Amino acid sequence: MADDRENGERVIHVPLGERAYDILIGEGLIARAGGEISTRIKGRKAAIITDEHVGALYLEPLMDSLQADGIETVSLSLPAGEKTKSFDHLQKVCDVLLEARIERNDTVIALGGGVIGDLTGFAAGIVRRGVRFVQMPTSLLSQVDSSVGGKTGINTRHGKNLVGIFNQPDLVLADTGVLNSLSPREFRAGYAEVAKYGLIDQPDFFAWLEKNWREVFSGGAARTEAIARSCQAKADVVVADERENGRRALLNLGHTFGHALEAATQYDSARLVHGEGVAIGMVLAHEFSARLNLASPDDGKRVEAHLRAVGLPTRLSDIEGELPPPHILLDAMAQDKKVKAGKLTFILTHGIGQSFVADDVPPSEVLSFLTDKMASANI
Amino acid sequence: MADDRENGERVIHVPLGERAYDILIGEGLIARAGGEISTRIKGRKAAIITDEHVGALYLEPLMDSLQADGIETVSLSLPAGEKTKSFDHLQKVCDVLLEARIERNDTVIALGGGVIGDLTGFAAGIVRRGVRFVQMPTSLLSQVDSSVGGKTGINTRHGKNLVGIFNQPDLVLADTGVLNSLSPREFRAGYAEVAKYGLIDQPDFFAWLEKNWREVFSGGAARTEAIARSCQAKADVVVADERENGRRALLNLGHTFGHALEAATQYDSARLVHGEGVAIGMVLAHEFSARLNLASPDDGKRVEAHLRAVGLPTRLSDIEGELPPPHILLDAMAQDKKVKAGKLTFILTHGIGQSFVADDVPPSEVLSFLTDKMASANI
Repeated sequence: MADDRENGERVIHVPLGERAYDILIGEGLIARAGGEISTRIKGRKAAIITDEHVGALYLEPLMDSLQADGIETVSLSLPAGEKTKSFDHLQKVCDVLLEARIERNDTVIALGGGVIGDLTGFAAGIVRRGVRFVQMPTSLLSQVDSSVGGKTGINTRHGKNLVGIFNQPDLVLADTGVLNSLSPREFRAGYAEVAKYGLIDQPDFFAWLEKNWREVFSGGAARTEAIARSCQAKADVVVADERENGRRALLNLGHTFGHALEAATQYDSARLVHGEGVAIGMVLAHEFSARLNLASPDDGKRVEAHLRAVGLPTRLSDIEGELPPPHILLDAMAQDKKVKAGKLTFILTHGIGQSFVADDVPPSEVLSFLTDKMASANI
Repeated sequence: MADDRENGERVIHVPLGERAYDILIGEGLIARAGGEISTRIKGRKAAIITDEHVGALYLEPLMDSLQADGIETVSLSLPAGEKTKSFDHLQKVCDVLLEARIERNDTVIALGGGVIGDLTGFAAGIVRRGVRFVQMPTSLLSQVDSSVGGKTGINTRHGKNLVGIFNQPDLVLADTGVLNSLSPREFRAGYAEVAKYGLIDQPDFFAWLEKNWREVFSGGAARTEAIARSCQAKADVVVADERENGRRALLNLGHTFGHALEAATQYDSARLVHGEGVAIGMVLAHEFSARLNLASPDDGKRVEAHLRAVGLPTRLSDIEGELPPPHILLDAMAQDKKVKAGKLTFILTHGIGQSFVADDVPPSEVLSFLTDKMASANI
């Protein structure tokens, strides 16, 4: 399904019937956005939702590109950070879209990372019961994960992403040029999700990453390749199971632990960002699988070695400050969406690239695992 | 697709593939809700959202019925009235559902009229990106219209229903027994939507209503028949065009004018309720069609005569208090969802039961029509 354009750009088609769309990956896509959008979407208006950091860098070139193609634009810059995924900001975005009279065939563009994409995709899906929606992810994390697949939402005091909808974008434009302005920490956090695709079901991709990660970090063709393979992997899973009734849950490898750690650190990005939680969560998922005699302890060690090599945290003790006791972490997992009748749904593994969905994990097993991990971390 | 049960209950199946559901119409369904729900939905928890008026009458019997079938219940009673369809109440409902740990296979029940159904259906569709949802409409309006078809939403300062989603219920339980507690005015308002189905494309049903409306108002078999024919008519349209890309717009007959009148009266139910706005709107739609030489003026007179006979308002001058000038009414229509590139989408007609979608109505024609109507009303 992947396709190469002459300029080195990659095109991945996500075949979801009447919700099908293309993912374009390449350098300079912000400057070419007007052309890509106007050939696909009829409406002559676009509202760009961004955050203050990203907007300062890329809002003007994007508006220029849209206006050059005859698209009238309005924009809204929101505070950067996870706290923006709130009911208050959702209402604000809806209000701006209605004020601008964005109609069903007009476009709402999410220019930013996962926070902006999730919030904007939700708003675009509920204003007039759905207007056109374009993802322009500007972080590695959002380029390889959140911009693909249609999950949108906001956080509540009960947890992350507990309110939202499935809303597939009409187009994803991933400008790889913007990744050069990411901090190393942000790039690493996104890389955790790239590695995840290998760990789910592509052991060869994981091995390729172990060998080529330095090239992926330094940019160029290896980076584009890693992003394209990640998007393709995610698209394949989404097409097989759009609404997460089965296989799609595999994408949550490392996320049940990871979300609990994010909640436990109050979503304080100084202590832990999403991708870091996922990195630790993936190591924990492999170790927990080994403890249940499902996988070899060596796999967990190999996963940890690679993630540590690229500079990601891999242990609970890598998180600065105190963590709450194990039963509070467990409670955060149980409030996660992935719960059925009191049993926890976990992604476990038989080894590198051999993940599977277990929907009958007894909370007591998780509790004793966490208790042991935290006891040994405190020695 | 309609089916009769031994107790006189009617079952209408809405064949929407994986979103298919049944509409049950009959007396005593509140008392039988536990059985109907527990055979269809796995989860053992239900959250009932209602309003203070309806809750005072029916919340206890409904909870008793659910608990008798082993379903754990929580409930929330909101203020009655259109103002409850707000972002604030949406957030409140989501919060209660998360607090109660309603999971994906648990049930959210909307017990009430259209306001409760629209708000609750929206919340049920966004909490955990969708939990199970049962409509228990308690007004005639919601039994024949808003509970069927999956449109949900809230109002904003820009207009009605401008934020929402399509969320088909898993089941509709329309207890016709509760209609006896409606005020005559409320019943009449719902009847406007019943008559609408005749006017859209069933001239024989409209003629049947002209002859049998007294029996429909007094209850019994004729009432059940009118509700079942209405639900079947709506279901047929929804199945043909679930997301309102074409034919479904016919259901808006009378609604573009009606919504503008509701906005113009600040949704003040002392002055105008939805069904009354639709009644006046349907007469206006027929008169406007005649003015455009699409229909005979006699059809408008026949529509008005019938609606007036049952006691519904049919003219702008039937609305108490001042109305804003025509251009403000027009502006309210243009902010309606049914706008494409500046042209108004109207449901026009060639006569009784011969409605059609016109998506190219020039605002200037509407303005001059309204100006003339209001000038003559003021003589």
